[in-house]
Amino acid sequence: MAENTLKPGLEGVIAAETRLSSVDGQRGELIIAGIPVEALAGNATFEETIYLLWHDALPTASQLAQFRADLARRRELPQATLDLLKEAATQKSVVMDALRMAAGTLGLSTTGSASTGEAEEEALTLVAAFPTIVAAYWRWLHGDEPIAPRSDLGQATNYLYMLSGEPPGPEQVRAMETYLNTVADHGFNASTFAARVIISTQSDMISAIAGAVGALKGPLHGGAPGPALDMVFEIKEAARAESHLRDKLERGERLMGFGHRVYKVRDPRAEVLGVAVERLYQSGGDKALYELARHVEVTAVALLAEYKPGRNLQTNVEFYTALLLHGLGLPTELFSPTFAVSRVAGWTAHCFEQQQTGRLIRPKASYIGVKDRRWVPVEER
Amino acid sequence: MAENTLKPGLEGVIAAETRLSSVDGQRGELIIAGIPVEALAGNATFEETIYLLWHDALPTASQLAQFRADLARRRELPQATLDLLKEAATQKSVVMDALRMAAGTLGLSTTGSASTGEAEEEALTLVAAFPTIVAAYWRWLHGDEPIAPRSDLGQATNYLYMLSGEPPGPEQVRAMETYLNTVADHGFNASTFAARVIISTQSDMISAIAGAVGALKGPLHGGAPGPALDMVFEIKEAARAESHLRDKLERGERLMGFGHRVYKVRDPRAEVLGVAVERLYQSGGDKALYELARHVEVTAVALLAEYKPGRNLQTNVEFYTALLLHGLGLPTELFSPTFAVSRVAGWTAHCFEQQQTGRLIRPKASYIGVKDRRWVPVEER
Repeated sequence: MAENTLKPGLEGVIAAETRLSSVDGQRGELIIAGIPVEALAGNATFEETIYLLWHDALPTASQLAQFRADLARRRELPQATLDLLKEAATQKSVVMDALRMAAGTLGLSTTGSASTGEAEEEALTLVAAFPTIVAAYWRWLHGDEPIAPRSDLGQATNYLYMLSGEPPGPEQVRAMETYLNTVADHGFNASTFAARVIISTQSDMISAIAGAVGALKGPLHGGAPGPALDMVFEIKEAARAESHLRDKLERGERLMGFGHRVYKVRDPRAEVLGVAVERLYQSGGDKALYELARHVEVTAVALLAEYKPGRNLQTNVEFYTALLLHGLGLPTELFSPTFAVSRVAGWTAHCFEQQQTGRLIRPKASYIGVKDRRWVPVEER
Repeated sequence: MAENTLKPGLEGVIAAETRLSSVDGQRGELIIAGIPVEALAGNATFEETIYLLWHDALPTASQLAQFRADLARRRELPQATLDLLKEAATQKSVVMDALRMAAGTLGLSTTGSASTGEAEEEALTLVAAFPTIVAAYWRWLHGDEPIAPRSDLGQATNYLYMLSGEPPGPEQVRAMETYLNTVADHGFNASTFAARVIISTQSDMISAIAGAVGALKGPLHGGAPGPALDMVFEIKEAARAESHLRDKLERGERLMGFGHRVYKVRDPRAEVLGVAVERLYQSGGDKALYELARHVEVTAVALLAEYKPGRNLQTNVEFYTALLLHGLGLPTELFSPTFAVSRVAGWTAHCFEQQQTGRLIRPKASYIGVKDRRWVPVEER
């Protein structure tokens, strides 16, 4: 019976087992490779989180040093990738399209011979190169020359450096590390699943990750933090928050940045990022915006309790992501690409895990069309 | 109970309903958009099959003329795509990687502004440009200059023309049309499913198809016809066929080109292509190879009945595909890319169908890792 029941969207179907992350919406709990996100995100460097996801263990000091070096020397892009990004910038491609196109070319090498398809080699290249792609493209898109990656910096630091040209301060780096750790993996989602479907054919890592970037671009994927910040910008001043939000709720609109499809009590990532955001804005930045945002948040949560009683709609990861990335100087167009800079860690880890199963992912379809349409030559139609 | 049962590889799970094709392995039946493959493949032009898949109806004469023109004027590649292919050829990328990379760039335009993401526009571009990509890349890979597409030719004719530089004869064109029609869609398979997962996020057609090409590349995807022909080449002469095949079977090896995972009585595509192959070789080509292949086939089927009684292992689509494409002058490295030139019709049709559902494809994963790993600073590890 269950064998032949239609499962539209595969909702509720368990497609695989994973050791990479556990999302428990009822408990408000996120575990990343065995470690609760609250214990991991604020402490680890992004390199440690990637290593943890790939190897199911935290690296020793020497393993970490080697891993950092392995990534650092893979940050330069092939010339063909740079040429493609430059042309895409001329045509004003959206950043996610540019990232997808460039990611797909990372099998080309900087030294003149195409990748041999070795999975760990390709995964290192993808993780290392994503920040370079995003930063280079963003700068070309705005008429600036790209800034070459620095191999003496960590992933988070170097990404911020390549975007602005300025080495970031320690508070900026800590905030970026925390963000990258927080969203590095989150169970199954459409992009992670797309990557696993592709690599399940024993195709290569680059094919799988390019597919995942394509899936992440879609509005139904979720996780786009831009709209939460747009709402704060619209409100402009604290005194207008309540009436603005009330109007939205009266019109039946959703308040972006509140509530989550899975997390029913709290979004553990919101708490982690909330702490990071507070520290970041204490060290500098647009404090007025931060105060306004916090006021909007408190007001929104209170109004949601009033308008949607019993739903327990709390601040979600998108709200704090938007504040954090804004505090780091990133425009909203870079929010999704920066999410990809983090999530490529989870995607590649899922690809390794899928490869170990050796199993093709291939559901069935149920045919509901006719079976007796006649072939009629065109002159008789 | 069924809700929370692990379905590894989603085997037996019905993920969606479709009107595009019906695969009935027990009956040996393949229906393409309502028409049995036997009635469609040998009669239609490839354009008619694409139109049928996209519109669930055969085109009238004027619709067909318009559709052919819509495709014909989208065959030229953007300059950035050409540059990328040329560099990939220098690095000797495998053809499927080159096709995947180039497909991902088709949102760039030939006229200088990136695609607006309109689905039918992108689908037309993808279907129109795939033959140009494969032919241009193949020629660069072998030190030849690409041949520009001709807008006065149909898809099948123009593809053969761009590969060789010679306009093909009517028997060649009919054989290629028949092949492209036969494999244009085949229910769910990993590449079609990958495309649907990606576009289910409301991402764009180009992202979805680039992902599908990546999935098709994997050896577990199936459908690679090269090995069947390699076996015929190995055997070299009819007198050696029986002993060679017996040796293989005694060693427990699989005979490539025989038997099918789904089709248990006969592969309807093999019959259609068998007729096309016979006509093609009657009109010219390597008749000695054809005679040898038919002898190998008869011998293999007889020996399989002897060694695997009750299994009913018949000639499959790959055996005749290999003979047909070889008869058209294509080397084995072009077999999978040519499959993609056809299957892009089915992929794009599935994307349209998925878009109509408006539904995200997102199964769950079951977490089997630990939940209490402690965070330990690196200096204490």
